[in-house]
Amino acid sequence: MYYPEPITKLIDSFMKLPGIGPKTAARLAFYVLTMKEETVLDFAKALINAKRDLTYCSVCGHITDQDPCYICSDHQRDKQIICVVQDPKDVIAMEKMKEYQGLYHVLHGSISPMEGIGPEDINIPSLLKRLQDENVQELILATNPNIEGEATAMYISRLVKPSGIKVTRIAHGLPVGGDLEYADEVTLSKALEGRREL
Amino acid sequence: MYYPEPITKLIDSFMKLPGIGPKTAARLAFYVLTMKEETVLDFAKALINAKRDLTYCSVCGHITDQDPCYICSDHQRDKQIICVVQDPKDVIAMEKMKEYQGLYHVLHGSISPMEGIGPEDINIPSLLKRLQDENVQELILATNPNIEGEATAMYISRLVKPSGIKVTRIAHGLPVGGDLEYADEVTLSKALEGRREL
Repeated sequence: MYYPEPITKLIDSFMKLPGIGPKTAARLAFYVLTMKEETVLDFAKALINAKRDLTYCSVCGHITDQDPCYICSDHQRDKQIICVVQDPKDVIAMEKMKEYQGLYHVLHGSISPMEGIGPEDINIPSLLKRLQDENVQELILATNPNIEGEATAMYISRLVKPSGIKVTRIAHGLPVGGDLEYADEVTLSKALEGRREL
Repeated sequence: MYYPEPITKLIDSFMKLPGIGPKTAARLAFYVLTMKEETVLDFAKALINAKRDLTYCSVCGHITDQDPCYICSDHQRDKQIICVVQDPKDVIAMEKMKEYQGLYHVLHGSISPMEGIGPEDINIPSLLKRLQDENVQELILATNPNIEGEATAMYISRLVKPSGIKVTRIAHGLPVGGDLEYADEVTLSKALEGRREL
């Protein structure tokens, strides 16, 4: 033990965060000592408040400080479209776009047999219930474009399609501003496959 | 504003830390939501305690929760040698080595005319006072091996040498485990200059 105890504890706390190792944790902890006491108190309060006041929306699973969340309780939005995403951060990304007017459903993960995560472990049952109870016309599957995300989209699609609801998947292709030369083969193949007439 | 307020505040707090931008701050804040409430409370407490309980040792300037610090108040240490470092983290680095038995003096910075930091802005006056009051035989200058660190070492050396105290500078050279091929010219030149007979 080379540090006085209070700083050791702070370093340990920082090390519990993802992507922060012992060196970074020590750097951050020492930086906290140079901050104003007021700022540190605000930081501590922000931590506690975020953990205590935020819950997941009982309807869509998005992170919220009111239930239902600000999106689900917004009467201006199109309640006939639900966009399925893996993570609350994906909702934020979609909302930043400012084009989508429908609702969301946050799965909090993806089906991953390798990690033992099945359909029941993520928010799929609650999605199916919503589809039964609400008058949904279209389900947009916006899970991540990787193996788990694709598998999850495929799984939901097969479950929902028989009920007659339109199920769509967001497009795969070259990112805007990207360079054909640097695109990987799979993306390029998907872009070619998804080509549209002009 | 795309996030509920409590999470925005937490993101803002994380962004005040060095090297943490908006994306990382959001990632950390969302991670906090998945942590156990107890762990988050401990984190908040650790922040407040570190800021409140830790001060700088009135003798050497090292970070401490008791004054004088655990090194200054250790009677087993050799009080005739003082090692001058720039930062409390440098004391930790020296202590990890487990070989040095003397005391320390933490400058909390280095002389940097470019940033307007002069000898009076760092802990040099208190060092000079210690050298007058205490029976010091050797002063080891272990400031960083860069321009500011060298200038600081040079400045202290010129001030202290006339008083007859032995002033030494830690060696420059190739780091152990390093590779001659990848050493920069200045380090290599210092290593050659500091060569010793075997």
